[in-house]
Amino acid sequence: MKHVAIVGASGYTGRELLRLCSRHPHLRASVVMTARPGAVPEAPAFPNEPVIDPLDHDRLTEVDGVFLCTPHGAASEIAAAALERGKKVVDLSADFRLRDPAVYARTYGGEHPAPALLAEAVYGLTEHRRDAVAAARLCANPGCYPTSILLPLLPLLRAGAIDRSRPVIADSASGTSGAGKSPGERTHFGNVHENFCAYGVGSHRHAPEIRQESGLPDLVFTPHLLPTFRGILSTIYVSPAPGHDAGSMRDLLAAAYESEPFVRVYAKGQPELRCVQHGNECHIAVAASGPVVVITSAIDNLVKGASGQALQNMNLMLGLPETAGLTDGAAS
Amino acid sequence: MKHVAIVGASGYTGRELLRLCSRHPHLRASVVMTARPGAVPEAPAFPNEPVIDPLDHDRLTEVDGVFLCTPHGAASEIAAAALERGKKVVDLSADFRLRDPAVYARTYGGEHPAPALLAEAVYGLTEHRRDAVAAARLCANPGCYPTSILLPLLPLLRAGAIDRSRPVIADSASGTSGAGKSPGERTHFGNVHENFCAYGVGSHRHAPEIRQESGLPDLVFTPHLLPTFRGILSTIYVSPAPGHDAGSMRDLLAAAYESEPFVRVYAKGQPELRCVQHGNECHIAVAASGPVVVITSAIDNLVKGASGQALQNMNLMLGLPETAGLTDGAAS
Amino acid sequence: MKHVAIVGASGYTGRELLRLCSRHPHLRASVVMTARPGAVPEAPAFPNEPVIDPLDHDRLTEVDGVFLCTPHGAASEIAAAALERGKKVVDLSADFRLRDPAVYARTYGGEHPAPALLAEAVYGLTEHRRDAVAAARLCANPGCYPTSILLPLLPLLRAGAIDRSRPVIADSASGTSGAGKSPGERTHFGNVHENFCAYGVGSHRHAPEIRQESGLPDLVFTPHLLPTFRGILSTIYVSPAPGHDAGSMRDLLAAAYESEPFVRVYAKGQPELRCVQHGNECHIAVAASGPVVVITSAIDNLVKGASGQALQNMNLMLGLPETAGLTDGAAS
Amino acid sequence: MKHVAIVGASGYTGRELLRLCSRHPHLRASVVMTARPGAVPEAPAFPNEPVIDPLDHDRLTEVDGVFLCTPHGAASEIAAAALERGKKVVDLSADFRLRDPAVYARTYGGEHPAPALLAEAVYGLTEHRRDAVAAARLCANPGCYPTSILLPLLPLLRAGAIDRSRPVIADSASGTSGAGKSPGERTHFGNVHENFCAYGVGSHRHAPEIRQESGLPDLVFTPHLLPTFRGILSTIYVSPAPGHDAGSMRDLLAAAYESEPFVRVYAKGQPELRCVQHGNECHIAVAASGPVVVITSAIDNLVKGASGQALQNMNLMLGLPETAGLTDGAAS
Repeated sequence: MKHVAIVGASGYTGRELLRLCSRHPHLRASVVMTARPGAVPEAPAFPNEPVIDPLDHDRLTEVDGVFLCTPHGAASEIAAAALERGKKVVDLSADFRLRDPAVYARTYGGEHPAPALLAEAVYGLTEHRRDAVAAARLCANPGCYPTSILLPLLPLLRAGAIDRSRPVIADSASGTSGAGKSPGERTHFGNVHENFCAYGVGSHRHAPEIRQESGLPDLVFTPHLLPTFRGILSTIYVSPAPGHDAGSMRDLLAAAYESEPFVRVYAKGQPELRCVQHGNECHIAVAASGPVVVITSAIDNLVKGASGQALQNMNLMLGLPETAGLTDGAAS
Repeated sequence: MKHVAIVGASGYTGRELLRLCSRHPHLRASVVMTARPGAVPEAPAFPNEPVIDPLDHDRLTEVDGVFLCTPHGAASEIAAAALERGKKVVDLSADFRLRDPAVYARTYGGEHPAPALLAEAVYGLTEHRRDAVAAARLCANPGCYPTSILLPLLPLLRAGAIDRSRPVIADSASGTSGAGKSPGERTHFGNVHENFCAYGVGSHRHAPEIRQESGLPDLVFTPHLLPTFRGILSTIYVSPAPGHDAGSMRDLLAAAYESEPFVRVYAKGQPELRCVQHGNECHIAVAASGPVVVITSAIDNLVKGASGQALQNMNLMLGLPETAGLTDGAAS
Repeated sequence: MKHVAIVGASGYTGRELLRLCSRHPHLRASVVMTARPGAVPEAPAFPNEPVIDPLDHDRLTEVDGVFLCTPHGAASEIAAAALERGKKVVDLSADFRLRDPAVYARTYGGEHPAPALLAEAVYGLTEHRRDAVAAARLCANPGCYPTSILLPLLPLLRAGAIDRSRPVIADSASGTSGAGKSPGERTHFGNVHENFCAYGVGSHRHAPEIRQESGLPDLVFTPHLLPTFRGILSTIYVSPAPGHDAGSMRDLLAAAYESEPFVRVYAKGQPELRCVQHGNECHIAVAASGPVVVITSAIDNLVKGASGQALQNMNLMLGLPETAGLTDGAAS
Repeated sequence: MKHVAIVGASGYTGRELLRLCSRHPHLRASVVMTARPGAVPEAPAFPNEPVIDPLDHDRLTEVDGVFLCTPHGAASEIAAAALERGKKVVDLSADFRLRDPAVYARTYGGEHPAPALLAEAVYGLTEHRRDAVAAARLCANPGCYPTSILLPLLPLLRAGAIDRSRPVIADSASGTSGAGKSPGERTHFGNVHENFCAYGVGSHRHAPEIRQESGLPDLVFTPHLLPTFRGILSTIYVSPAPGHDAGSMRDLLAAAYESEPFVRVYAKGQPELRCVQHGNECHIAVAASGPVVVITSAIDNLVKGASGQALQNMNLMLGLPETAGLTDGAAS
C-alpha cells in the first residue's frame, strides 16, 4: 500500500481525487490538507465530506506521493517542499505546464515562481509520455481542454496527416465544474441554466499550452460554457494533408490507441458526454464534412481532464499498475 | 385587424406563433388547425393550451394569411390550397427552401411535391429579402441554423471580407426544441440532461440550405445538441480576405445592421442564449483568434429561427408594420 | 399614460417589472434606480440590459407610483420619501407584510424601521384585498410562497371547509430565482443542478406571514429548492371539516375564482410549473388522498409571486385596468 | 467468485446493476439477457454499453443468483424458472412486493401471475429483514419511494413515537430515471426541464406497498417529478406521540441505524440529493415544525432505491459480505 497527500482537497479536483483514491486497491489518501497557508479548514457540512487539515509541509514526510490541487501560482512552493523531502509530485495546477517562463508570465500574469523546476517537470499527457512520467519526480498534469484536444491531434500530427498550412480549429464546450467550486457570476445557476456562450475567444489560457504540445503555433481554440456540471466535448476541424482523408485519419487513431485502456476510437457514431462522465476515458470519432475532417473527442473534465489522469500519472511514478483505481467505467 | 390560420398548431413552432399572435395588435389567429389530414385533435390537457380543429382547406377562406407549421413534405398541398384561395402563405417547413428540386430530393429523400411553386417562393431571411418578401405570395421561412449563420455571414460575403478559398466553418449548438415536440430517444430527458454531442456531422439537412444562400459550396456545418430547451449559438470561423480583420468585419456588420430592429452587433462581449430567448433578436459578436476571425451569433430557434421570423415575414406580406407583435424583447 | 419608478432595478424582481412595464399599454417605467444609497450602478453588460441610475429621492416626483424592489429593511425609508411626495407605493420587500412589529423583529432580526407606516399598509393579495388595495397609498406585496399557499387556502378557510384542529401542511418547492441574483453557495450551479433539498424547515421567514394571513397559527411550512429558475409548486395537505371532501372543496375554489382573470381551478389534472411560467396566473388542483385533501398550486414566483402581482396592485392603485400589461399568458 | 444473471439488462436498473457488479470483488455478471421473450437485442450503440443476449431460461443454470429487472407481470415466470433450477432470485419488479393477491390485482390491474410464490417471497428492505433475506430463495426488492419512506418511519413506529391517529404524510420527489428508459410524454426533455409537478395524487402504486409495510392503512403519499435524473427526496410529516418530539425521534433513529453501513442520521442540516447520488446510502434528518415533526430522507432511486439494495440483498442470499461492491460512496 502506497500513501499520498492531497493538497487543496476542498475543490472539485481534490474531491474527485479522494473519490478515486477511496476505490484504489494500492493507494491511500493519508494526508488531506488545504492549499491555503495559515487557513483553518471548516468542519464538513455533510457527513460524507472529508475532514481537511491545515497545510503543514512536514506532514508530506508521511507519504510517497503528493497531489497538488492548488490555484496556479501556489503550487510551486509546496512542490519544492515535497521534492526536498524526496516525494513524487503530480501538480494539477498550471504552474509547470508551460516550458517557457516568458509564455507563463504572459499567460498567467507574473514571473514564474520556480523556473528552476520547470526544466525537469514532465508534461503528463500519459498516453504520449508514459516513460518520461514513470521516471519523473515532478509531473505537470495537463489542462482539461488540452487533454481533450491533444489526444486526437497528436497521432495525426506525428503521421503527417494534417495540412499544417491551414488553420486547425478546436471548438470546445465544458461543464461548469471547470470553473471551480467558488460561487461567482459565471457559475450562478440563473446565469448558466438554459444558457450557452463562448468565452475567452482568442485569449484563453489553455491555448498556449495546446500550441506548445501540438507544435501548432496558430491553432485556434474557442471554449464555451455548457449548462452541465461535468464533461468536455471538443469538435476539431483539420484539413487533411495530401493522401489523407477521414478514413485514413480514423485508421491512424485506431491504431495509435489500439492497446490503450482509456482511449476509444469509434468506428461509427459520435461520442457524448454521458459516455465518459465519471470515468477516465477519452472517446474519439472522425467524420468527413466537405473539405475538412471533423474530429470529436469527449472526456470528463474532472477525471481524464484532471484527477483521473493525475492518478494515472501517480500510479506510474509510484510503480503501481497504471490503471489501478481507474477502471470502474463511466456512470451516468 | 388581419386574420391568419395556423396549420400544425400543436407543435412547438405552432404554439409559439399562437403566443406571438396573442400579443399582436393587428393580427388574430382565427383558424387553428392540425396539419394531419383526417386527424381529430385531442382536447387540451391544460387550461391554457389551445383548442385545435381538424384540417379543413375550406376554412382558409376565412383568413388573410396562412402559417404552415407542418412536417416537410406535407406543406406543399396545403400551400397550394391556400394560394388558390388567394391567401398569403408563410411555410415554416423545409418544402420551399431549396430552389433546386434535385437538391431537395437528395436532402429530404423524395421528389419535390410541388416543383412549380418553387420558382415563385421567396426565401424569407427578412433583413436580406425585405422587398421580395413583401411582394411574395409564398414565403419559405428559413431554417433555424441557417438563420443564425447567414445573418452574420451575408454582409461579410457581399463586402468581400472573407477569403473564400479557405474553409468557412459553422459550429452550432441548439436546444432540444429544434427536435420537435414528439418524444424520442434523442429528446428523452435521461439522454439530453447533463449531455452534449455533435450530430449529423457532414450530413445535416440545413447544410445545403446554408450553402445555397451563402454561395459557399464548401461551407462546413456541424450541429450539436444542448441540454437546453431554447436557443442556438453558432460559432463561425472565417479567414479574412486581404485588408480585412476582426475590426473591419465588426464595422461592416455594425453598419449593415445599424437600423435593423432585430439584429445587434456587439462592440464587446459575447452573446449568450439568455440574451435572446423568447425574443426575435439575433446578437452577433466578432473577435480575432490567431489567423481566423471568430463570429458568434445567438438566436432563439423558436422565434427568430422559426415563428418570430415567420411573423416578421407575414407582417410584410400583409402590409403591417414589420415589428408588430415582436417587440417585447427577451425574457429569461 | 402613467409613470412609475422602479427602485432596485438590477435584481430579478426589478428586471421582471421592467419586462412587464415594457408591454404595458398605460404605464411607463420612467425612473429606474438602484436601491443602494450612494451606489453608482455599473453600465449594462449586455445590449438589452437596462441603464440604472443612482438612487435619488427627488426623482420620485417625476412619477405616479413607485415599486420598491429592495432588500428587507431598506424599503421603509424610500417608501416614506415617496409617500411624502404623494406617490403610491408598492413594496416588494418584506418590510410591511407583518402587521405586528414584534413578529417582524423576531422574523427579520431587528426593530421595524417605520412602525407608523405599518398601520396603513395593505397586504396586497389582490384577489382577496382588491378594494383595500385600490384605496391604499402603501401596498405590501405578498411573499412568493405565501401567494401560492394563501390563494388556495383562503376561500376554503372562509367557508369552514377545513378542520382547523388538524395540522395544515404546506410543502413547497421553488426555483432558484427566489434566492436572488447575487451568487452564493446555495445558488452555485454545481450545488443546484441535479439536486433537491428542503431548507428552513420550521424556521422560514414566510411562515409567520402565511400564519398571519390564514389565521392558522400552527400552519406547517416546508420550502424546498428546485433545480429550476422560475416557479413555485405548493402541495398543501388539509383535513376536511365534517361535510366536506375534495369535491366540495374544488367546487368552493372554482366558485370563488370563477370570474378571476388570473386564477384557474382545474377540473382534472395537475398544475405544472411550465403552465404558469412567465405569466401572472395561479393554477390550482384538488384531489383526495386517503383521509386528507391534497391541494396543489403553481405560480411563477417572479410574476404572480412578485412583480406581476405588484403590477396588478399598482394598476388598481393608479386607477388602471387591473389586468393591463399582464395578459400575455405563460410562455415556456 | 459467485456468478449472477441480469435479466432485463437494457433498462436503467439493469444497467446500474452491471455498473455495480463490475466493481464487485466477489461477483460477476456472467449472464446478461433481455427480459422480453423472443426479442433479439440490438447491438450496443456505444462502445461501453453491454452486449445483451436473448432471453434463455436454460442459461440460468450457469449462475448462482438471478436479478430480475423486468416490467411488473413479467418477473413471475422467469422467477419460477430460476427457482426450479435452484437459484436465488432478487426481483426488482413489483411482482412479489404486495402480499395480498387482491391488493396486487387492484393495484397492478390483473390477477397475480404466481400467487403460490407470494407466500415465500421476502420483502427486502435489508436493514429491517436481514435474517429473512439471508434465508430466502426469493426476495422482493422494495420500490424506490417505499425505501425512502420506510427507512425513517419503521424505527419510529416500532418505538411508538408516532401518533397513529393523525395523518402520516409522505411528500416525495423523484428524478426521471424512476420513469424508465423508454421515451414518452412524461420524460420528454421539453416537458421535464424547468418543470415540476405532482402526479398520481391519491392513486400511486407505491402507496399500498408503503401502507402494507408500515402498517399505516391511511398513510398519504404524493409523488412529484423533478427535473433531475437521479434521486428521491421524501419529506415526511408525522405527529409525535405523547412524550415524543423531534429530538427524541432523532435519537431513536440514530440509535436504530448506529451500526448500519448505509443509513446516516444527521445531527444537523438537511440531506440533499447530491449527497447520495451514485451511492447506496440513505440520509435522514429530523426537525420540528410547529405541531409536527418533519423527517427528510434522501436516496439514489437507482441504487438504494433499486439496484444497490438488490445487490445488498443478493450478497446476503449468496453468503457474501453485505456491503461488497457497494462501498464506493456517492459521487456527484
